[in-house]
Amino acid sequence: MSVALTQHTLSVQTHGRSFVPLGSRIHRVLDASELRAGICTLFLAHTSASLLINEGADEEVTRDLERFFARLVPDGDDLFLHRAEGPDDMPAHVRTALTQTSVSVPFAAGSLSLGAWQEVFLWEHRHAPHTRTISVTLIGAAQ
Amino acid sequence: MSVALTQHTLSVQTHGRSFVPLGSRIHRVLDASELRAGICTLFLAHTSASLLINEGADEEVTRDLERFFARLVPDGDDLFLHRAEGPDDMPAHVRTALTQTSVSVPFAAGSLSLGAWQEVFLWEHRHAPHTRTISVTLIGAAQ
Amino acid sequence: MSVALTQHTLSVQTHGRSFVPLGSRIHRVLDASELRAGICTLFLAHTSASLLINEGADEEVTRDLERFFARLVPDGDDLFLHRAEGPDDMPAHVRTALTQTSVSVPFAAGSLSLGAWQEVFLWEHRHAPHTRTISVTLIGAAQ
Repeated sequence: MSVALTQHTLSVQTHGRSFVPLGSRIHRVLDASELRAGICTLFLAHTSASLLINEGADEEVTRDLERFFARLVPDGDDLFLHRAEGPDDMPAHVRTALTQTSVSVPFAAGSLSLGAWQEVFLWEHRHAPHTRTISVTLIGAAQ
Repeated sequence: MSVALTQHTLSVQTHGRSFVPLGSRIHRVLDASELRAGICTLFLAHTSASLLINEGADEEVTRDLERFFARLVPDGDDLFLHRAEGPDDMPAHVRTALTQTSVSVPFAAGSLSLGAWQEVFLWEHRHAPHTRTISVTLIGAAQ
Repeated sequence: MSVALTQHTLSVQTHGRSFVPLGSRIHRVLDASELRAGICTLFLAHTSASLLINEGADEEVTRDLERFFARLVPDGDDLFLHRAEGPDDMPAHVRTALTQTSVSVPFAAGSLSLGAWQEVFLWEHRHAPHTRTISVTLIGAAQ
């Protein structure tokens, strides 16, 4: 089984602090390739937003995740000296450190091998809208 | 050095909230392949359990990790609105967000390149036993 | 596009709890290979230090990250029973669990596809200096 590699770039517009599901866009990249089985590595080229794999069925889960992180890493915390871009600047970097900048998801039979409840999210940590860039690398076999 | 890819699925039975070492099962998958050097990517298809690489020599370490996470993300916390499956439901999702769903470990000379003290664990975050599915993808060269 | 794989080992000397930028050393490994596009997977073979991708432009960011983690996971916390190597022993394992042991960064046109503000750091969590080993695996195409 010989292995091939393709790379793509996704641009995602966020509307401030919130979760953006990515699964359907990743599947379109996968469908456009000839690869059927392998690894899809996502990389977010930013330090104040994250990639997160978690439950996508009940929206209360991501709302609770947001509540938990807002309590754990309070905006405007006096601890932080890096405040160049406002009270949510340094908390966004901490949230990024506590979650993921790159995630690798297997695919088989041309489809991501996500669990029944899993979704891949971009988690925007800044309150202002941002345009975020995600690199998608597929390494796999056409079978 | 031409590169090949193989995929396997592991099923792991947990006994409630605890750590299950995976290293010996991953090594069996690696031994059964002809690949000698490359990357082993593990992916856990669940949102209330994690993959974790940490010290496996002294069991007090994983017990202390459990104590820390139980204090950081308390079961039954009033903050959480998603409680469909009980007081450990949403804390399990938060613990998953704070740790890993996928990890990539290199291998060389047919063996995982883990450090002297490292073990790969499945960390079950729910109190009830669960059957968990892990996808193992090996990308590497037979040399 | 045929895919090749190379592996290298980096040895990094730390000077106690602090951040060591790795980008220039990783680029030297990449330059020495013939690979132009693919994935670079870093793996740290230790349980009391981390790999972290975060802002590298303003050093106040990593200082604030250190302040936050020192408050979240206090050295000498009575919660911890694993204290064989001192008050920073178990906190180092917890910090490792909360951050990363492996990260995968894409590269294209022979250069890591890091964002404008991103740096890859080794984060030493122990107060004493240590020699740390990082495995670098490149999977990619020479184009």
